[in-house]
Amino acid sequence: MRYVDDKAVDLKIAYIGGGSKEWARKLMSDLALEESLEGTVYLYDIDVESARLNEAIGNKLNSQWKYKCVLSIEEALKDADFVVISILPGTFNEMMSDVHAPEKYGIYQSVGDTTGPGGLFRALRTIPIYVDFANKIKEYCPNAWVINYTNPMALCVRTLYETFPDIKAFGCCHEVFSTQSLITKALKEMEGIECKRDDIYTNVLGINHFTWITKAHYKEIDLFPVYMKFVEKHKDDGYEDRGDWQDSYFNSANLVKFDLFDKYGFIAAAGDRHLAEFTPKDYLKDPETVEKWKFHLTPVSWRIKNRENLIEKSRRIAKGEEEFKAVPSGEEGVKQIKALLGLGDLITNVNIPNRGQIGNVDFNTVVETNSLFTKDGVYPIFAGNIPDRVKLLMGPHILNQKMIFEAAVKKDKDLALQAMLNDPIVNLTYEDGKKLFDEMMDNTREYLKDWH
Amino acid sequence: MRYVDDKAVDLKIAYIGGGSKEWARKLMSDLALEESLEGTVYLYDIDVESARLNEAIGNKLNSQWKYKCVLSIEEALKDADFVVISILPGTFNEMMSDVHAPEKYGIYQSVGDTTGPGGLFRALRTIPIYVDFANKIKEYCPNAWVINYTNPMALCVRTLYETFPDIKAFGCCHEVFSTQSLITKALKEMEGIECKRDDIYTNVLGINHFTWITKAHYKEIDLFPVYMKFVEKHKDDGYEDRGDWQDSYFNSANLVKFDLFDKYGFIAAAGDRHLAEFTPKDYLKDPETVEKWKFHLTPVSWRIKNRENLIEKSRRIAKGEEEFKAVPSGEEGVKQIKALLGLGDLITNVNIPNRGQIGNVDFNTVVETNSLFTKDGVYPIFAGNIPDRVKLLMGPHILNQKMIFEAAVKKDKDLALQAMLNDPIVNLTYEDGKKLFDEMMDNTREYLKDWH
Amino acid sequence: MRYVDDKAVDLKIAYIGGGSKEWARKLMSDLALEESLEGTVYLYDIDVESARLNEAIGNKLNSQWKYKCVLSIEEALKDADFVVISILPGTFNEMMSDVHAPEKYGIYQSVGDTTGPGGLFRALRTIPIYVDFANKIKEYCPNAWVINYTNPMALCVRTLYETFPDIKAFGCCHEVFSTQSLITKALKEMEGIECKRDDIYTNVLGINHFTWITKAHYKEIDLFPVYMKFVEKHKDDGYEDRGDWQDSYFNSANLVKFDLFDKYGFIAAAGDRHLAEFTPKDYLKDPETVEKWKFHLTPVSWRIKNRENLIEKSRRIAKGEEEFKAVPSGEEGVKQIKALLGLGDLITNVNIPNRGQIGNVDFNTVVETNSLFTKDGVYPIFAGNIPDRVKLLMGPHILNQKMIFEAAVKKDKDLALQAMLNDPIVNLTYEDGKKLFDEMMDNTREYLKDWH
Amino acid sequence: MRYVDDKAVDLKIAYIGGGSKEWARKLMSDLALEESLEGTVYLYDIDVESARLNEAIGNKLNSQWKYKCVLSIEEALKDADFVVISILPGTFNEMMSDVHAPEKYGIYQSVGDTTGPGGLFRALRTIPIYVDFANKIKEYCPNAWVINYTNPMALCVRTLYETFPDIKAFGCCHEVFSTQSLITKALKEMEGIECKRDDIYTNVLGINHFTWITKAHYKEIDLFPVYMKFVEKHKDDGYEDRGDWQDSYFNSANLVKFDLFDKYGFIAAAGDRHLAEFTPKDYLKDPETVEKWKFHLTPVSWRIKNRENLIEKSRRIAKGEEEFKAVPSGEEGVKQIKALLGLGDLITNVNIPNRGQIGNVDFNTVVETNSLFTKDGVYPIFAGNIPDRVKLLMGPHILNQKMIFEAAVKKDKDLALQAMLNDPIVNLTYEDGKKLFDEMMDNTREYLKDWH
Repeated sequence: MRYVDDKAVDLKIAYIGGGSKEWARKLMSDLALEESLEGTVYLYDIDVESARLNEAIGNKLNSQWKYKCVLSIEEALKDADFVVISILPGTFNEMMSDVHAPEKYGIYQSVGDTTGPGGLFRALRTIPIYVDFANKIKEYCPNAWVINYTNPMALCVRTLYETFPDIKAFGCCHEVFSTQSLITKALKEMEGIECKRDDIYTNVLGINHFTWITKAHYKEIDLFPVYMKFVEKHKDDGYEDRGDWQDSYFNSANLVKFDLFDKYGFIAAAGDRHLAEFTPKDYLKDPETVEKWKFHLTPVSWRIKNRENLIEKSRRIAKGEEEFKAVPSGEEGVKQIKALLGLGDLITNVNIPNRGQIGNVDFNTVVETNSLFTKDGVYPIFAGNIPDRVKLLMGPHILNQKMIFEAAVKKDKDLALQAMLNDPIVNLTYEDGKKLFDEMMDNTREYLKDWH
Repeated sequence: MRYVDDKAVDLKIAYIGGGSKEWARKLMSDLALEESLEGTVYLYDIDVESARLNEAIGNKLNSQWKYKCVLSIEEALKDADFVVISILPGTFNEMMSDVHAPEKYGIYQSVGDTTGPGGLFRALRTIPIYVDFANKIKEYCPNAWVINYTNPMALCVRTLYETFPDIKAFGCCHEVFSTQSLITKALKEMEGIECKRDDIYTNVLGINHFTWITKAHYKEIDLFPVYMKFVEKHKDDGYEDRGDWQDSYFNSANLVKFDLFDKYGFIAAAGDRHLAEFTPKDYLKDPETVEKWKFHLTPVSWRIKNRENLIEKSRRIAKGEEEFKAVPSGEEGVKQIKALLGLGDLITNVNIPNRGQIGNVDFNTVVETNSLFTKDGVYPIFAGNIPDRVKLLMGPHILNQKMIFEAAVKKDKDLALQAMLNDPIVNLTYEDGKKLFDEMMDNTREYLKDWH
Repeated sequence: MRYVDDKAVDLKIAYIGGGSKEWARKLMSDLALEESLEGTVYLYDIDVESARLNEAIGNKLNSQWKYKCVLSIEEALKDADFVVISILPGTFNEMMSDVHAPEKYGIYQSVGDTTGPGGLFRALRTIPIYVDFANKIKEYCPNAWVINYTNPMALCVRTLYETFPDIKAFGCCHEVFSTQSLITKALKEMEGIECKRDDIYTNVLGINHFTWITKAHYKEIDLFPVYMKFVEKHKDDGYEDRGDWQDSYFNSANLVKFDLFDKYGFIAAAGDRHLAEFTPKDYLKDPETVEKWKFHLTPVSWRIKNRENLIEKSRRIAKGEEEFKAVPSGEEGVKQIKALLGLGDLITNVNIPNRGQIGNVDFNTVVETNSLFTKDGVYPIFAGNIPDRVKLLMGPHILNQKMIFEAAVKKDKDLALQAMLNDPIVNLTYEDGKKLFDEMMDNTREYLKDWH
Repeated sequence: MRYVDDKAVDLKIAYIGGGSKEWARKLMSDLALEESLEGTVYLYDIDVESARLNEAIGNKLNSQWKYKCVLSIEEALKDADFVVISILPGTFNEMMSDVHAPEKYGIYQSVGDTTGPGGLFRALRTIPIYVDFANKIKEYCPNAWVINYTNPMALCVRTLYETFPDIKAFGCCHEVFSTQSLITKALKEMEGIECKRDDIYTNVLGINHFTWITKAHYKEIDLFPVYMKFVEKHKDDGYEDRGDWQDSYFNSANLVKFDLFDKYGFIAAAGDRHLAEFTPKDYLKDPETVEKWKFHLTPVSWRIKNRENLIEKSRRIAKGEEEFKAVPSGEEGVKQIKALLGLGDLITNVNIPNRGQIGNVDFNTVVETNSLFTKDGVYPIFAGNIPDRVKLLMGPHILNQKMIFEAAVKKDKDLALQAMLNDPIVNLTYEDGKKLFDEMMDNTREYLKDWH
């Protein structure tokens, strides 16, 4: 890598999980649109065919970026300047177990990739893979910046740091962005003031998918009273900021978010599907309750079908049957890369180990707060304490983050089971819990071979 | 106070709650039997008649101790060398609400004085009283050693320290002693070796009523394998160390304790009634489950009746109709007093704020571990970390300890409600939880006047 | 205070020490030049005449700001939005003792207001005054932002927070700015690239007047190799960035700074006069050594004379005999005020209690790092650890910060003496140290009345 | 190892440095006198001849212990139950440099093995050896208890734990014992009460050779007022508790200790020779000052001569020309071994990493406080905070402990030099310091080969 006239050229980005569908196209778009960066993206995926498709798609864009599919992770990582990781740990078969196996025990998960039995098993599959990633990064590109998009976010990032403490890694998630957008809509609706989400400042703190905004302002305007009026107005029927809530499994009417604001006084900054999993007693009792709160349980069957569509689309683009044009994705990965190269500072929310940026959470817990991105530096910005009552909700998950990591590394079934029972979404006796646990172990044994 | 020939004489002990029945007689007995101590016990109680009865009873013992009922707490505390506190916060009416109000919501509490909705409301009543005690102690006897026997133990002790950080206070509880006795019985039964509980050393750590033993030995003998064999033998039918488990609400067959050992590998060191409240899903699902595990829900109606018997007994003793003879109580308060006076060092378990004696619990949390008692000093002994999976169980209660204290001091209903919902014994939606909470508030409003 | 069209109007600033000379004129200038702010500055000073002069001068500027001299601090503080504090604790008589009394013991201080016997005694006089300020702020304007300019900076800020923990205070110092300017000059000289100090990003950490830069970049350019070449070139003869080093007591040839870079590998970010006091053995052995390193001992006699000139100038301006025109001062106070009002975020270095922004310094120590200034918030930015060997130099001063505060509050002569002996600039036996200490106590007894 | 009738038999003790003279004979004596222990001591030393001599001497005792000289450390360690380490890092030639090289720079060290340039260089030689010991212990006897007697104590123990965090190690030093004896003498002289040092309880805290007693009592008697009277009486002429202070380089008149009590209010619990090195300005200015304070600089020439005498004595004993009878040594190693085997609990002072036993010292710093020794456990006892002003004196040494360890492991000359300059005994400019440092490096290059 070198600089030419305030541009960074000859960059090498290693994309692990480079066969991904939507994420890859977003990155390609954002890279193509950023004129100050130039280089090659090395696509590595265990699904080689998908990586090859992306190679073709990427190069079709005819941008200042080249795409190259490689067959070994080492080749991708060797001397990379940046590493982007976005993988699916296991297949949809395993995800089927993650999300749906607990249902017959009365446990309904709206996503199943972060917490609950689903998040747990996904973590048990993912952590050993990330231990391996961290070791390879240490060997092949110890100075690279590593950007993680895989869930469970907090545990992926934690694993990277626990394995290679000097790693320069962070995790990105757009859930906070949507909430920021929602706040700008509130400002528009209640005060008639228009602005973009980048124009407002929010103090963000929590753990991924259970992040909270404790202060927000647009210029001199405190956005909390504005949001409060907005919630008052919409808390009965909801507010559908992305179209009819029934149109997509990913849509909601923000009723969970509004209810949490009402009860806790702070703005929960993630989609209702994620938030509900951290506060399951109220919103995930059964499918009827979910419907009442106007959000969805996301069936894995839908994901399977959707994936087929996405593959089909990729093929069409690669063959030139469908056009692929670079449009801004709304993600911030490329802005972060730019900032880390010294080409423009940026403050945004990321997931990194706590060094004190949250006052009342143990060090090393991976937390989400704002950070300053500047040349070769991600400096967390002190965000204060988690509000007391929110801390009560977050407590078990913070403990679980540590325990699940330990259970995965030691292959400790008992500890993993205890972590599952500790999750508020799991209201089972030890015996029933053990049955569910063993079933899920069995369902996903392909990816948990060394546990047996 | 002064020393004469290795005896401490002219001691002044302030007994707050000096009208108590059983506890008072135990203290009187132990004091009478300890020849190196001599002085006056000032009995203060809002129930003056009971304090007067105890004055009469104490003086009847004709020991080296005088008993004096006083009408103001100031008179009791003024220049006291020791303060003993053992009160009932509220009456049995309030306890009726604590224990039984939650039952119609499917929440069964075997004791209801430590955790759960019962423990919470008891704490909300108790904490302001203890704030007052701490302030009075600061004013009238800042150098006194304060021994607390009231529940909820951890919150009482925490309140004393939060209010008057330089207080010299600790909390005593005999639950660990019973478990130590049980271990000696295991040693007798499995190895034929006889010893007393004082002869074994146990490393104790946790929070009151959820304390665990992580190491135990008698001389060179590791007692864990011994206990394991004992549990193997009795875990199906139980072991009734204090008579038929059905004979008393306080008896059990230790089945909860044995099951916890089986699942966690460490010795839970409290009675099954207490332990079950920290692990409610398995043992407190409903009254049938409780019966299956061979322990009891303790009805408050029984406590009321029992109290009448105790009062009757006190009256008979005071009138000389029944003899009262000093016999060792099994409690350690008097030994501790002796040690603090420099008359013999002692290592035993107590409840004091964490200063690092438990490695993985926040400072200031009131925890239970061993301490060295020596002249004018209680030095906690480092006990290591709470084992990971036990930490998962203890986590919500550690957080709650902090939050309940704050809620009580700030009269913050929301926070108190959140703490209640955070308790694993409470499996309710926010709405149902709020209903229960409001009911209990209303039931006990007499003692929560300034909350309204 | 209210907002009108993105302007903040009706602001109330309380200026404690409002009779100051240079500082007041700088603030007046910067306020006059900032169009988005408007209001009244309340000038309070025990030297009423000086405050009155400033009132006249300020109002002569004919800006959007009014100046009002008030006779009581309460009137100044009452409902203020901002409080600016810049006082001289004691008179130049006391400063004479601070700086020169130690000289006969072979202790030479180039400034004498931060560390060493001079800094200590200045602190002992200042801390009680700041305890009083903090209490008054708590009473009259608890929500005001408080900006401190008085030295010893760290102890002033610490006192504010120790006395009123919820205070919103920070301390500003321009020493880092000068070093940033020096770095831009290095960039110009070595690479031919021109930029302003605001254009570079420096990671700043340390304690006031002993702050270090551990990373610096301009766009993509790492400034450390640039600075290294610059130091190589100038380390023998020095670099006089503010004119001939002999022309002013405040000038230097940066030789101390260059030498520290050579020895420690990081950029010491304060003037040589301050840096030398933290590394006295090498640079402050005797006046000859000081001269060799091309900086100055600042005699108080000069300060006295200079003050007369400043007063004269104030009088002339007030009378209209000399023009006073607003020119940018180079200070950042007004930018910070703007940011805190939500009118433009800012990242800059400030002095606030450590909440983790420096990893290897105790919490509550007042440290200097970058912070994000945004609406009603100063969020420290994590700066990493003090480099090991720099930590060795800083260690005694970090301890002293805590001890001097305690000594001042408790009026504990022994502790104050020990703190003095602990300072590396003091190479005296206990007996000699005590003699010096007693002398300085006596010299400044007027301002330490309650110590006797 | 196994137990027979409350005796531990077939014990294996590895003695690293098993050719030592006095220490070996003390251990042999104490082992012979302890009837409940029985086994074999494996003597390993790079000086094989000395180890062989000790083998002969040990076996001559005809006790229940066998002594066996082995030629490899692995053979000694393999499955050992206990490891005792007492080595001389380097020879007296290196010690000559440690102690005397600094003298021409005006630095006088009374011992030169703990702090100062001497302690530093001794540490630089020792730490790599201890890294190796720790790794070998991890491999050959990870469950053994390791008892260290080598200086610099704190750094030896720190190295063991930093290298093998699960090691069960502690360091023993008798300096505190002597102070306890001195206190009993004070009690005898001032109050006529006779007791042994085991009968008094002292709260001990600090770092090795700079340990302090903050509380002391014998039964109900507070020993501080007693000691104060004693100090008053003897502080002018001294108190020679071990014979005329001029008779031995190890004797003193305790004047330093008394003076420190006078100035700080706590009892410094080490010999004057050690204490002076931590407070050098007052007591180690020059040889005349040392004489005035009635203690000694210990010349290495004397150590060389003494060593010859000791070897001669060993030879005579081995040949049977001189009798060797087991008498109690006053050391506690054997009592500690017994306690760790479950044969009798013990509370005594040891050097282990801080886990909170001292409140105001960073975790991991090796500190000296009381601990409870029980079966397979050393549990530190909370000792409170280092008193403020003592902390000021201890601060640089606590920082140095960390830095010297890092410097030794990284072979970082600059950091080692900075640590040396940071020591209050070193009052040199950087340049002079560097000259001394380089000289000492050169003098001891034989043992610092990989630094060059």
